[in-house]
Amino acid sequence: MAKLPTVFSLRHLLVLSLALNLSLILKLVYEGEHRRSSSNNNHSCFEAQRGTSTNSNPDKSRMLISLPNSTCTDQTARGGTNRIINLDHGDPTVYETYWRQTGEKSTILIPGWQSMSYFSDVSNICWFLEEEFGREVLRLHRVVGNAITEGRHIVVGTGSSQLFLAALYALSPPDAPQPISVVCASPYYSSYPSMTDHLKSGLYKWAGDAESFDKDGPYIEVVTSPNNPDGHVRGSKVNRSQGYLVHDLAYYWPQYTPISSPADHDLTLFTVSKSTGHAGMRIGWALVKDHEVAKKMTKFIELNTIGVSKDSQLRAAKVLRAVSDSWELQGNSQEDESFFKFSHKLMANRWKQLRLVVEQNGLFSLPKFSTAFCTFFNQVLEPQPAFVWLKCEGNVEDCESFLRAHNILTRSGTHFGVNPKYVRISMLDNDENFSQFLDRLSAIKSQ
Amino acid sequence: MAKLPTVFSLRHLLVLSLALNLSLILKLVYEGEHRRSSSNNNHSCFEAQRGTSTNSNPDKSRMLISLPNSTCTDQTARGGTNRIINLDHGDPTVYETYWRQTGEKSTILIPGWQSMSYFSDVSNICWFLEEEFGREVLRLHRVVGNAITEGRHIVVGTGSSQLFLAALYALSPPDAPQPISVVCASPYYSSYPSMTDHLKSGLYKWAGDAESFDKDGPYIEVVTSPNNPDGHVRGSKVNRSQGYLVHDLAYYWPQYTPISSPADHDLTLFTVSKSTGHAGMRIGWALVKDHEVAKKMTKFIELNTIGVSKDSQLRAAKVLRAVSDSWELQGNSQEDESFFKFSHKLMANRWKQLRLVVEQNGLFSLPKFSTAFCTFFNQVLEPQPAFVWLKCEGNVEDCESFLRAHNILTRSGTHFGVNPKYVRISMLDNDENFSQFLDRLSAIKSQ
Repeated sequence: MAKLPTVFSLRHLLVLSLALNLSLILKLVYEGEHRRSSSNNNHSCFEAQRGTSTNSNPDKSRMLISLPNSTCTDQTARGGTNRIINLDHGDPTVYETYWRQTGEKSTILIPGWQSMSYFSDVSNICWFLEEEFGREVLRLHRVVGNAITEGRHIVVGTGSSQLFLAALYALSPPDAPQPISVVCASPYYSSYPSMTDHLKSGLYKWAGDAESFDKDGPYIEVVTSPNNPDGHVRGSKVNRSQGYLVHDLAYYWPQYTPISSPADHDLTLFTVSKSTGHAGMRIGWALVKDHEVAKKMTKFIELNTIGVSKDSQLRAAKVLRAVSDSWELQGNSQEDESFFKFSHKLMANRWKQLRLVVEQNGLFSLPKFSTAFCTFFNQVLEPQPAFVWLKCEGNVEDCESFLRAHNILTRSGTHFGVNPKYVRISMLDNDENFSQFLDRLSAIKSQ
Repeated sequence: MAKLPTVFSLRHLLVLSLALNLSLILKLVYEGEHRRSSSNNNHSCFEAQRGTSTNSNPDKSRMLISLPNSTCTDQTARGGTNRIINLDHGDPTVYETYWRQTGEKSTILIPGWQSMSYFSDVSNICWFLEEEFGREVLRLHRVVGNAITEGRHIVVGTGSSQLFLAALYALSPPDAPQPISVVCASPYYSSYPSMTDHLKSGLYKWAGDAESFDKDGPYIEVVTSPNNPDGHVRGSKVNRSQGYLVHDLAYYWPQYTPISSPADHDLTLFTVSKSTGHAGMRIGWALVKDHEVAKKMTKFIELNTIGVSKDSQLRAAKVLRAVSDSWELQGNSQEDESFFKFSHKLMANRWKQLRLVVEQNGLFSLPKFSTAFCTFFNQVLEPQPAFVWLKCEGNVEDCESFLRAHNILTRSGTHFGVNPKYVRISMLDNDENFSQFLDRLSAIKSQ
């Protein structure tokens, strides 16, 4: 009996030691990753400035997403008005804060022998769709209530860009004498025209603003809702019988817009880049009603890239599961916070700050949004888009140049099919850049 | 002093317990992954047969890579002559055995907050190239000696398919009145024609066999070496002044062909699918001499998929590092075996078995290869390609149908621009299917 306490304390010590060692190991792993990431950030800090300074002719050298700035750790650069704040692109780095505190819930481990085959599930039309990813897509739509998934095929893509091209390929009549017209109401996403026309396809051709489209015959209309760049909820504009609709719903998530009802269309596109902020994964998905269209979209992806990264699909599945779990199992602690609560609060806060600055300086105006009932948060809410569609009021005709003179890089309205009094500005950059942006905007007034 | 032994035994116990617990945890993780993988395999077992049975018109329904079979665990199906062996595609699952024993050397862990941005390194022309991946590509070429990397830009792609399309885009004159001709000597990779023509591009157009190409003006010639399907080492065939060459060197690795000298071309394509067997990653790379061509290829990938999965790039970096390490640090144990020694031995063994069967039954013939000095293995060796380019001798005119009647699915010569007496057969399937294939081939003779 004298030995009993020793056994207990030994056990306790063992348990404690085990816990300690495991946490140390995990800490080591995470810190290793962190160090690597930090060194990457520091590296790109200089490059962003180098990059933007060579971008003297933005029209010619423009990328879909232009050169980013980064969170410079160099204290001399931080906060200085000489530093260029690049809000031209929509890099969703703002969500990194959330994902940092999710730990193993969103961490994935892939052994070297896994996912070697081209194939995922040959019983599926989309034979390269990882079953686990498909399951989490269905679950997330059920949790959020933003899309009807019944009677739809899921086609996974290397981002929704690839799925946009796959949709054009699938909807174009294969033997038409002329390419089918592709239209979208302006202001439209600046990349649609170049994505459509860069290969001079004989199947489809960009035909500009949907509002002024008056050609007879079949056409493809892209409906982006909420719209990139201006954040407005949209429906089809052309409304003729021979139209095929592609609904780009990249931003139809609770942090950006009230979820009014589940989307119920023939072909809708979504992406993890904007929903969870994982742009580097390059994973998007399409919900497709028609069996033949899903098949042709799959064929396009086969001809284009022979499938979609399995690693990223598995990682996306884990991240989507974490998002659904965080809503369904949310607790009271900060660590248990739902992703959508976190991101909605963050966007609400940014928009509030921005409105205040814009109101105070009087040089700019913002789009006006109506409130709507959000079935997800179960309350009446206002849209708070991922981009600001800013208008320079008064005599300023070229808003992009005007802001560039204040070291704020934005994307001119000309790229979106409208006039240069407008610019698109990302609301998804990191805290430091967003705060710098507000400071500079405020300062413009006093000049 | 009486306590000292207790302290020691306590320490020992702690260390032992820690080791035990850690190994248990690791075992649990690995077994979890294993179970998932096995259940996927079982699932596709039925589907493969379902899939192939619907494939009644192979020309119309053919995929770049057609429906796979799998290692069926159903004992009634195993070994039965009714089971369809699908060797039409080149799914490199044969290498899984090697990667299973590499453990953590090839395992990657990605936390949820990592690689969220679109950007990897904005100082690089290819701004979405992960630095780590680029570094391992350079190292592997240095280790193997199969390509000169000095003075080349690396462009990463979603498999080498995307890079093939990127090369066509980059090399086509943008404002030519006619699309540029794309040619390749037959037998050529069966997917080049459909990849080139599926969008009816005004920039480039498939023009067939390079041998018979006689059109004036600029052209693009694809040089696949060793060639898919026939395994022969190749050079350019057209040899005129206005040609742009794309060297597809997917199979220029020591397990398939003697490495004679480092490739020294303007534009070469490589892929992890064939080098390490990780087809599911969808990662390829191009070595590009000309700055403007690298820039245009990058632009294509930006318009096509806004970059390439970072997760797969990081995983590919880890796998390439494991390959280089396995050569440079190889030991005597099986676990320390070099990847190229393992894969070379495996291919040598398969080819030896196949030659024996083909010799014995006399119904077929194989390509004849010359030996060559391999600078990597430092000895004279024979090619042992990833595909068999089999010819049906005698009266059999349609070799694909002939073998299909024996439940062996292959790809007819007609898809490669030659006659149907030839078929292409994968040598990279798993052991069970390869062995079944040999058994059936032997059995044909005795009928």
